[in-house]
Amino acid sequence: MSKKNLRLKSYRKLLLFIFALSLAASSSPLSLIAQRRAQQATQTEPSQFSPQLLRELKQIQQAALESDYALKQLAHLTNNIGPRLSGSPQAQQAVEYIAGEMRRLGLEVKLEKVMVPHWVRGEESASLLEFPGQAPNTTQKVVLTALGGSVATPAEGITAEVVVVNNFDELTALGRKKVEGKIVLFNHKFDEQIAAQGYGGAAYGESVVYRGAGPSAAARLGAVAALVRSVGGLSYRLPHTGATRYAADAPRIPAAAVAAEDAEMMAYLTTQGSVRMHLVLTPQQLPDAESYNVTADLRGSEHPEQIIIVSGHLDSWDLGTGAIDDGAGVVMAMQTVQILKQLHLRPKRTIRFIAWMNEENGLMGGRTYAREHAGDVSNHVAAIESDRGAGHPIGFQATGKPDIIKILQPLAGILESSGAPLMRMTDDTEADVSPLSQAGVPAFALWQDERTYFDYHHTAADTFDKVNPRELAENAAVMSVLAYAIASIPQPLPR
Amino acid sequence: MSKKNLRLKSYRKLLLFIFALSLAASSSPLSLIAQRRAQQATQTEPSQFSPQLLRELKQIQQAALESDYALKQLAHLTNNIGPRLSGSPQAQQAVEYIAGEMRRLGLEVKLEKVMVPHWVRGEESASLLEFPGQAPNTTQKVVLTALGGSVATPAEGITAEVVVVNNFDELTALGRKKVEGKIVLFNHKFDEQIAAQGYGGAAYGESVVYRGAGPSAAARLGAVAALVRSVGGLSYRLPHTGATRYAADAPRIPAAAVAAEDAEMMAYLTTQGSVRMHLVLTPQQLPDAESYNVTADLRGSEHPEQIIIVSGHLDSWDLGTGAIDDGAGVVMAMQTVQILKQLHLRPKRTIRFIAWMNEENGLMGGRTYAREHAGDVSNHVAAIESDRGAGHPIGFQATGKPDIIKILQPLAGILESSGAPLMRMTDDTEADVSPLSQAGVPAFALWQDERTYFDYHHTAADTFDKVNPRELAENAAVMSVLAYAIASIPQPLPR
Repeated sequence: MSKKNLRLKSYRKLLLFIFALSLAASSSPLSLIAQRRAQQATQTEPSQFSPQLLRELKQIQQAALESDYALKQLAHLTNNIGPRLSGSPQAQQAVEYIAGEMRRLGLEVKLEKVMVPHWVRGEESASLLEFPGQAPNTTQKVVLTALGGSVATPAEGITAEVVVVNNFDELTALGRKKVEGKIVLFNHKFDEQIAAQGYGGAAYGESVVYRGAGPSAAARLGAVAALVRSVGGLSYRLPHTGATRYAADAPRIPAAAVAAEDAEMMAYLTTQGSVRMHLVLTPQQLPDAESYNVTADLRGSEHPEQIIIVSGHLDSWDLGTGAIDDGAGVVMAMQTVQILKQLHLRPKRTIRFIAWMNEENGLMGGRTYAREHAGDVSNHVAAIESDRGAGHPIGFQATGKPDIIKILQPLAGILESSGAPLMRMTDDTEADVSPLSQAGVPAFALWQDERTYFDYHHTAADTFDKVNPRELAENAAVMSVLAYAIASIPQPLPR
Repeated sequence: MSKKNLRLKSYRKLLLFIFALSLAASSSPLSLIAQRRAQQATQTEPSQFSPQLLRELKQIQQAALESDYALKQLAHLTNNIGPRLSGSPQAQQAVEYIAGEMRRLGLEVKLEKVMVPHWVRGEESASLLEFPGQAPNTTQKVVLTALGGSVATPAEGITAEVVVVNNFDELTALGRKKVEGKIVLFNHKFDEQIAAQGYGGAAYGESVVYRGAGPSAAARLGAVAALVRSVGGLSYRLPHTGATRYAADAPRIPAAAVAAEDAEMMAYLTTQGSVRMHLVLTPQQLPDAESYNVTADLRGSEHPEQIIIVSGHLDSWDLGTGAIDDGAGVVMAMQTVQILKQLHLRPKRTIRFIAWMNEENGLMGGRTYAREHAGDVSNHVAAIESDRGAGHPIGFQATGKPDIIKILQPLAGILESSGAPLMRMTDDTEADVSPLSQAGVPAFALWQDERTYFDYHHTAADTFDKVNPRELAENAAVMSVLAYAIASIPQPLPR
C-alpha cells in the first residue's frame, strides 16, 4: 500500500469504520441489515443476479475457502524466491514463475514491459560515537535501514551531530544555523492508538509524510543526512523501510529509517548533551531496468473484449520476503482464476489477472499499463486489487459511481457467510489501479482487518508465517466472488 | 532469569498460577481471602507486625509508587551506558555508576571482586546459497545471532547443508551418517499458548534445553555447526541469544539462534530438496576478566550484623540494552534503599543492596558471593531478587520454611492495594540468590505478570521503552515493603 492511498481520514469516517468492524463481528444484526439492503436494492431496480449466478458465486466462495492453492503459491513466492525488489533477480524469477503458473492454468499470458528504478541496498550501520554518560571506548548501536531511493554516504561513512525534531515546525524553528552539518532525526510517532482501532492507514498517513518529504526539508537547511522514526506499529527494534522522495530544489542527502527504540534513545540523549553519530549507508541507484507486469486472460464467453482486472503487486521491499505486502494480493488474484478453471466456470467478460511490478518505489507498472492500454480503457469494466495484507476481510471499497454498490448489493448475502459483506465508496484506491481509476475505471480494493498490518509493513518480519491460512482463503474468496460477479452480470458497471 | 530457575512445572501448578492471576485481577474476593488468612495467622501465632511497622510499610509503599527514581536510574543504565555483557567496558561503567549512586545515598559501598567469562560477539551473518526454486545468483538471508559462549567459524565462514530436526529424538534417528558435516537446526517451537497463559517460564523451560545441550548433541554426530530456533514469544524476525553449554565429551562447534521465521523457512525448504548455508560467526572467548558485585549496606539499627539482600543483576546480554533483563531488577533494589533514605526510616537489620555481575553467562557473581560470605551465611536473613522483568507484580515467591508465608501474611493487606498480595513457596528461585538459597538462606523472587517477558528476552528489543513506568514503580514498592518488613520484625525469619 502506498502513501498515496492513505490520506488522513476524518474522525467521522473512523467512527464509521469501527462501527462497520463491530457489525462484521456479529453476524445476526448484520444478517438483518444485509437482507434489508438486498430488499431495498430489489425494490429500486431489478437485480442483475440470476439464481444461477448466485449459485455459481456460492460455489466459488466455498471452493476458494477450501483451497490451499493461494497459500502454496505464497509459500513459493516468499520462501523459494524471496524478496522481490524491482530490478532484482528475484523479481525477474517471480515474473517467470507467475507466467508459468498462469500458462499451466491455460490462460493467455503476456509479459508487458515496464522500465523500473533499480535501487540496491548496500551496507548500513550506525552508532553513536559520543553521547552523555557513555562508558570509555564504547558506542551505542543504532538500528536503521536506508530508505528506498536514498543516496549513499561515502563508503567510510559520515560523522555528525544528531538533532531531533518531532515535526516540520520544530525543524523550521531550529533554522539553518542549528541544522547545518547535522544529521536530522524526525521523531514523529506512529499513532498506535489509531492503529489499534483497526485503522492503521490513518496513523500511517500521518507519519509517512516525514519519510517522503523529511530528507529534502532537512537538506534545505543544510543537514548532511536525515533519519525518520520508523513508520509502523509495535516496537521490536525493527526499522521500516519505504520510498523517500527527493525534491528537485534540495540537495540529495542520505536517508534512513531508525527503529522506534533508537529514535526514543536519541531523543532522550540529545536532551542531555551532544550526540554524535557515525552513519554508513551505501545503496546504489543503478540504471533503470527492464521488468514486466504479468497479465493473464481468462477470456469471457460473451464479451471477451470487456475486462475485469484481479491483481496484487509482485514486487516487494527487500528486507522481508513480501508476504503481506503484497505476495498475498498476487496469490488471491491467482486463486481467482485458478478456482474458475477448477470449477469449469467461464465468465461472460474477460477476467484479467495482473501481477503488477514496481508498486513500492515508482508505480511504473500501474502507470505503464494505464498508458499502454489508454485506447482500450473504456473496455475496462473494473480493476480489483488487494494491497493491505491478508487480515480477515470485511468487504470491499470501490471508486466510481455510487450505483455500483446498489448493483452489487446481492453479494452481501453471499459474502456475509464469511464475515465480509461490507461495501462502501471511497475517494481513492490501491496504488496500482489508481491510474485506471483516474481514467474512469471503477476500482475495487479489498477491505481487511489491518490492525496488525503496520507492525510488519516494510520490515524484515514481513514473512510467510505472518499470513493466516484461513484468512488468506477468505480474502481469495472475496476477490473471486467479486470478480466473477462483475464479469457475469448482464450489464457492465456504470461509469 | 536463567534456565536453572525454569524447570518445567507441572500442569497442576500452571492451573494454580492461572487461578492466582485471576484472583489478583479481582480485588474483592481477594480482599476476603487476605483478611481470612490474616485472621488465621493471628489465630495461630501473634503477629510480628506492630501498628507502627504497618504504618511505615504503607508509607514506603506509597512513596515508592509515587517515585520516578527507579525509572530515571533505568534510563541511565540502558540509554547512557547501554548493553552490559560481563567483561565489557559498559559493565565496568555500570559498576562504577551504581557504586557512585549508592555512595550518594550515604550507604557503605563495596566492590566485591568477581572473575567473569569475557565473551565478545563478532561478525555474524548467514545466508542460504542453494535451495529449491531459487532465482539465479541470489541467496536467502537468514537472521541469526551467536549463542553466548559459542566458538567461531573461520573468518571466511563455513558452508554446509542444513538438516532440520524438531527434537533430540529426531536427531538420534538421523544418525551420524545424515548429520556428519552438516549444520543442524533444532526447530523446537516455543509454546506461545503456554506463554500467553502468563507462564512464559514453562514454555521457556521446554525450549531452552536445545539452546543449552543442542550444540554438543549435534557435534557428537559430526555436525559442523548447530542452530536453535529462538527461544521466545512473538515473531518479529528477532533472534534471541543466551548461553550455550558445551559438554566435555563433544567437539565445540559454532552455535547460533535463528529467528523463528528463518527456522520456519528452512524447515519448509529442506522438505523440498538440498539447502546449503554459508555461516559466519566470529565471536571470541577472551581471558576471564576482573569484575565486581556492587554491594551497599544500609546498616540496621538493632542487628546490623543481620542482612537482608535486595538485588537484581547488572550484567545483560549485548543485543539490547538490558532493560527488562535485568536493569529493572537493579533499579527496584536501588529504589528500595533510596526510599528508606528519603523517608528517614532505618530498619532494625541491615538492608544490603547488591547489583550482581554475570548472571547471564556464568553466574560467577552469585557463586562468588556465596563462597566469600560462607562464614557469615547464618547472618543472611533473606535474599530478595527480581529477574523476570518489570511487568505488573502480583506478589512474591519464597524458598525455605513454609512458616515464612505465615509470618509475612500481614503484608498481603498492604500489597493488595496495588494488586500484589500473593505469596507462595517454591522449590527454586532467581539465579543469583540460588547459591544462598541452597545454603539455607530464605530467598524471595518477585512474582510478576510475565506474559510479554519472553517476547523481548535476550533480544535487541530489550530496551528502556519496554518498561512501563507505573509497573516498575509497583515492583519497587513490593521489593521495598518486603525488605523493610523482614528487616524490621522482631524475629529473624526461621530457617
